[in-house]
Amino acid sequence: MRIGVIGLGRMGGNIVRRLLDGGHECVAFDVDAKAVDGLAGEGAVPAHAIADLVAALPAPRVVWVMLPEGKITGDAIDQLANLLSPDDVIIDGGNSFYKDDIARGAALIEKNIHFVDVGTSGGVWGRERGYCMMIGGEADVVKRLDPILATLAPGAGGISKTPGRDGRDPRVEQGYMHCGPTGSGHFVKMIHNGIEYGLMQAYAEGFDILRNKSSKELPEDRRFDIDVADVAEVWRRGSVVSSWLLDLTATALASDPSLDRFEGRVADSGEGRWTIEAAIEEAVPVDVLAAALFARFRSRIDHPFGDKLLSAMRFQFGGHKEAVGPEEKISKT
Amino acid sequence: MRIGVIGLGRMGGNIVRRLLDGGHECVAFDVDAKAVDGLAGEGAVPAHAIADLVAALPAPRVVWVMLPEGKITGDAIDQLANLLSPDDVIIDGGNSFYKDDIARGAALIEKNIHFVDVGTSGGVWGRERGYCMMIGGEADVVKRLDPILATLAPGAGGISKTPGRDGRDPRVEQGYMHCGPTGSGHFVKMIHNGIEYGLMQAYAEGFDILRNKSSKELPEDRRFDIDVADVAEVWRRGSVVSSWLLDLTATALASDPSLDRFEGRVADSGEGRWTIEAAIEEAVPVDVLAAALFARFRSRIDHPFGDKLLSAMRFQFGGHKEAVGPEEKISKT
Amino acid sequence: MRIGVIGLGRMGGNIVRRLLDGGHECVAFDVDAKAVDGLAGEGAVPAHAIADLVAALPAPRVVWVMLPEGKITGDAIDQLANLLSPDDVIIDGGNSFYKDDIARGAALIEKNIHFVDVGTSGGVWGRERGYCMMIGGEADVVKRLDPILATLAPGAGGISKTPGRDGRDPRVEQGYMHCGPTGSGHFVKMIHNGIEYGLMQAYAEGFDILRNKSSKELPEDRRFDIDVADVAEVWRRGSVVSSWLLDLTATALASDPSLDRFEGRVADSGEGRWTIEAAIEEAVPVDVLAAALFARFRSRIDHPFGDKLLSAMRFQFGGHKEAVGPEEKISKT
Amino acid sequence: MRIGVIGLGRMGGNIVRRLLDGGHECVAFDVDAKAVDGLAGEGAVPAHAIADLVAALPAPRVVWVMLPEGKITGDAIDQLANLLSPDDVIIDGGNSFYKDDIARGAALIEKNIHFVDVGTSGGVWGRERGYCMMIGGEADVVKRLDPILATLAPGAGGISKTPGRDGRDPRVEQGYMHCGPTGSGHFVKMIHNGIEYGLMQAYAEGFDILRNKSSKELPEDRRFDIDVADVAEVWRRGSVVSSWLLDLTATALASDPSLDRFEGRVADSGEGRWTIEAAIEEAVPVDVLAAALFARFRSRIDHPFGDKLLSAMRFQFGGHKEAVGPEEKISKT
Repeated sequence: MRIGVIGLGRMGGNIVRRLLDGGHECVAFDVDAKAVDGLAGEGAVPAHAIADLVAALPAPRVVWVMLPEGKITGDAIDQLANLLSPDDVIIDGGNSFYKDDIARGAALIEKNIHFVDVGTSGGVWGRERGYCMMIGGEADVVKRLDPILATLAPGAGGISKTPGRDGRDPRVEQGYMHCGPTGSGHFVKMIHNGIEYGLMQAYAEGFDILRNKSSKELPEDRRFDIDVADVAEVWRRGSVVSSWLLDLTATALASDPSLDRFEGRVADSGEGRWTIEAAIEEAVPVDVLAAALFARFRSRIDHPFGDKLLSAMRFQFGGHKEAVGPEEKISKT
Repeated sequence: MRIGVIGLGRMGGNIVRRLLDGGHECVAFDVDAKAVDGLAGEGAVPAHAIADLVAALPAPRVVWVMLPEGKITGDAIDQLANLLSPDDVIIDGGNSFYKDDIARGAALIEKNIHFVDVGTSGGVWGRERGYCMMIGGEADVVKRLDPILATLAPGAGGISKTPGRDGRDPRVEQGYMHCGPTGSGHFVKMIHNGIEYGLMQAYAEGFDILRNKSSKELPEDRRFDIDVADVAEVWRRGSVVSSWLLDLTATALASDPSLDRFEGRVADSGEGRWTIEAAIEEAVPVDVLAAALFARFRSRIDHPFGDKLLSAMRFQFGGHKEAVGPEEKISKT
Repeated sequence: MRIGVIGLGRMGGNIVRRLLDGGHECVAFDVDAKAVDGLAGEGAVPAHAIADLVAALPAPRVVWVMLPEGKITGDAIDQLANLLSPDDVIIDGGNSFYKDDIARGAALIEKNIHFVDVGTSGGVWGRERGYCMMIGGEADVVKRLDPILATLAPGAGGISKTPGRDGRDPRVEQGYMHCGPTGSGHFVKMIHNGIEYGLMQAYAEGFDILRNKSSKELPEDRRFDIDVADVAEVWRRGSVVSSWLLDLTATALASDPSLDRFEGRVADSGEGRWTIEAAIEEAVPVDVLAAALFARFRSRIDHPFGDKLLSAMRFQFGGHKEAVGPEEKISKT
Repeated sequence: MRIGVIGLGRMGGNIVRRLLDGGHECVAFDVDAKAVDGLAGEGAVPAHAIADLVAALPAPRVVWVMLPEGKITGDAIDQLANLLSPDDVIIDGGNSFYKDDIARGAALIEKNIHFVDVGTSGGVWGRERGYCMMIGGEADVVKRLDPILATLAPGAGGISKTPGRDGRDPRVEQGYMHCGPTGSGHFVKMIHNGIEYGLMQAYAEGFDILRNKSSKELPEDRRFDIDVADVAEVWRRGSVVSSWLLDLTATALASDPSLDRFEGRVADSGEGRWTIEAAIEEAVPVDVLAAALFARFRSRIDHPFGDKLLSAMRFQFGGHKEAVGPEEKISKT
């Protein structure tokens, strides 16, 4: 199948490569001409304008947009929409907000252009490992894209078969799922990322307790000096907490158990935030997912105004000087 | 009534002064002789050793111990126990752990010495405002202490009467309560402090949102520049969130709206921690009280190891450099 | 001053009464004719249609809208806008979302109609106690409303003066504040409610631990049987946690210490939710305010799907039957 | 190697089986004679009293105790200690509190009996999958146990090698780790379980949002009807959230997507609680791990007293009837 790809960054570039490896033809465009030329050297058909990309595709066209969510993606889709013809398909493989998808899909279908949102997980490992894809859109249009999706997906791999799945959609076991109408793909991907934050924070807190068990703040007879890299490794085998994130943790700690190269200011993307907003919309309590998001916010603030206010109140009612003396070391066990 | 007071710090000194003002006689001891002499100048009977203090009291003696919780309080009580006689009373007015009280009370009653735990709230304002007291111990012994407790308590003051309290213990409306057997006074005081942390953190977070509404991180058309000192003041009148802590907040913000003199490293004492442990023992969910405690822990750590681990994982799966670039500014509203 | 009031429910009716008591004239309208007639009997000028209300007001008119936020308020404002003249003022005294205010204000000013948002705190107590008001809009328009606002506000009352406020806006100490441009009044009121949820939950959790200290789930020698009504009362005097909410708690517990008349399904209005969304927009961590909101969500769900999933996972990995036997009683102290 | 095993429940029985499969000899005891006889039929040497078990072992003896933590384990160790000889080894493979280990180890070494604590993860899957073991004790004693530990451990299996581990303890890659002195094994296992709770709760909340996206409480145009069983399955391949717990989730949902057979009252064992207490002792913030524990507490309470107090306060200040009418459905997006 021949497909256009717009956006050749970390994710888009590897998607083109995986498609080429799988025998597809890719017409590749990026505002960065060097990225285009680089992929042309790996077998892609270069396009130096969106119009060129459209011209190089057979009708009905399929264009995969892989750009940062928000205005950039919106603008690219608007441009495309002006160039495409009825029955063409635009795929948004980025991390767009699902409510934006719904609006875009509704506008495009007015022109008889189909819109498919694909939440794409896999990061820099995706080229090799395949991409887990959560897809929203019209069923027949999604079906039309099957050759591409099957190539990008991880496939069944060595992963054990789940009992009781007979009669269910076999695509799911290949690593891609048609979740429902427009927006549902990015909705499921959003929740995926929300969960990801929660999982990461659970490991982060646990390893924090392990590491601080050697802290000199503790009385000497209450300390253990535990090798956190070995703990991450041993848990990879037979424990309840084994996971891909734990594999990555073991890799990170093996080479740098103190993690001193990281400062610990942790970014967050839109999905973690939208997950909390979706939960609020549904009135579902999400204490863990929210705490994980807030821990990232907090990691980027040296001293919140709120903390200063706590000190100010303590000073007012107790005459407490702020010096954090012995008081906080009091612990009863 | 004549009473001995051991420990003449911020709290103990003012307790002596309020008792003297109320017409009681106080025999005052502290390891710091200057503190003793200072209070002698204000009318207290000075004692330069615990034995002197005991000797200066008529039987049955009453001694109020007002020392930092833990070993210091324990040692003072041990010393006292060796000097006192049957039917004497030891009051622990500090912030002891209630399980320590239970053990101490049981040991003392073997010698027929009575132990009373008094959780004492009021901070530096107590001398003027009176102390709210939560008391554990034998009912008749607590009754024996009534003259002292009535003097130290705030009294009914100008506070409106709660309807429906006819027939209830009138001491409570004077600001002191016999909560139950030994340990129960400090237990109630512990919960008081746990709640205090939660209340303070609720204000802290709310004012943080208010203040950050003027942040340059927000697009200009989404900002408000709100005077937080005025907000604290206006809420003191007729709002649902009016409280003594809000009064203190208004005072703090009126003179220093940016709170720049505080760094925001917030100490915690034992009670906040024990409150969470008590909740865990009872299997009661306490998300807010725990979050308030954790916010204080967090305020004293520059960058938790856990946060570095989050960055390390993100680097592993996404090749995310840590630089907290535009990614975290993404917000959908 | 003569003012129109639309919406004569719990809040709007009392606002009319307080204005009448203060010597103002009120033209009152509600879709419920009985409510109109009732207030006419108390001295209001009855209006049985919005057009009648507008006709009964001298130009430049002032109309206070006191309706449920959302479509109802929006529709009323739209209707009004078609009937009013340039330089008239619409006040939204309800709990509207501040972003809605901004949109409404911008649309109205096109017609030279002024929009003022007033966050109004005080509940059913407001008639007697006065309303704490947080106001957004043009400075000169807000000034024009001063006679009304001064009447509705609590006034300085018996509340102690905050030191250091010399030279600051004196209206604030009367209980009303001009917070900034359109939307800022409801923004501040929104945060007020967010804090309110946090404060309430802090008390709720603390009293839960107190009450469960008598639980038969605990070993007998670890129990205390504490009178929670007395605790609420004693904390009203001299303690750090004294507040208006605590006064209400004491009232509630005095007559019904077990609170058996309440089931414990707790509603939430929009402000608590919007507070969290505002915090997310600003990337401010709000663990306590979010936990307080989620506790309300949780209170209305019998058994979340997520809890069933926990049981299902435990069954899968441990063969754990769900029967919550002795396992959860394990506690180490 | 010949080893004694005390406690033949779900975990102990399978440990015996895996040891027998690995060519070891097991002397098996349980208070339930049927359990002993059953394992005798599978090749174990039956013992009908602890003394018999001790008598059937060659010196220096090794006895694995696999009993519920607390008094039962303590009593068995006490009995054993009276029967064993110097240089014998007691292994506690259960879920004991690590501070109990430290006390027990110190008491036993007085008699020159060695104590080894082994945190054992793997649940009912351990026999087949092997047990991940976290071990505390004297290094040479742990080394002496290597044949048994190597048999019980999962081994390297098909799990990819972590780069950068050259020169590190090779046992770790087999799935067992000597963590440090007595108590450190159970300490690491405790943190493992604490993390486990956090991971489980992250999935639970995420799937809750997914499922409630079809709720009739949402306006029809905001709903998606997402197949949660398929979502769990698709995430197993190539996604960031793949894990063993997700594998189990997929299995559970494949056969019962509504999970109606579970009520959702979720037990917790000691480790989750002790994890929070350890964090408090170290002053490490653990918002996610604590929230996960509290969610389990909450799952077992119909209506907390605290929730009733919220309703009571709302009634006091707002006259809010509890009926959770339209108010909680307000949502702004």
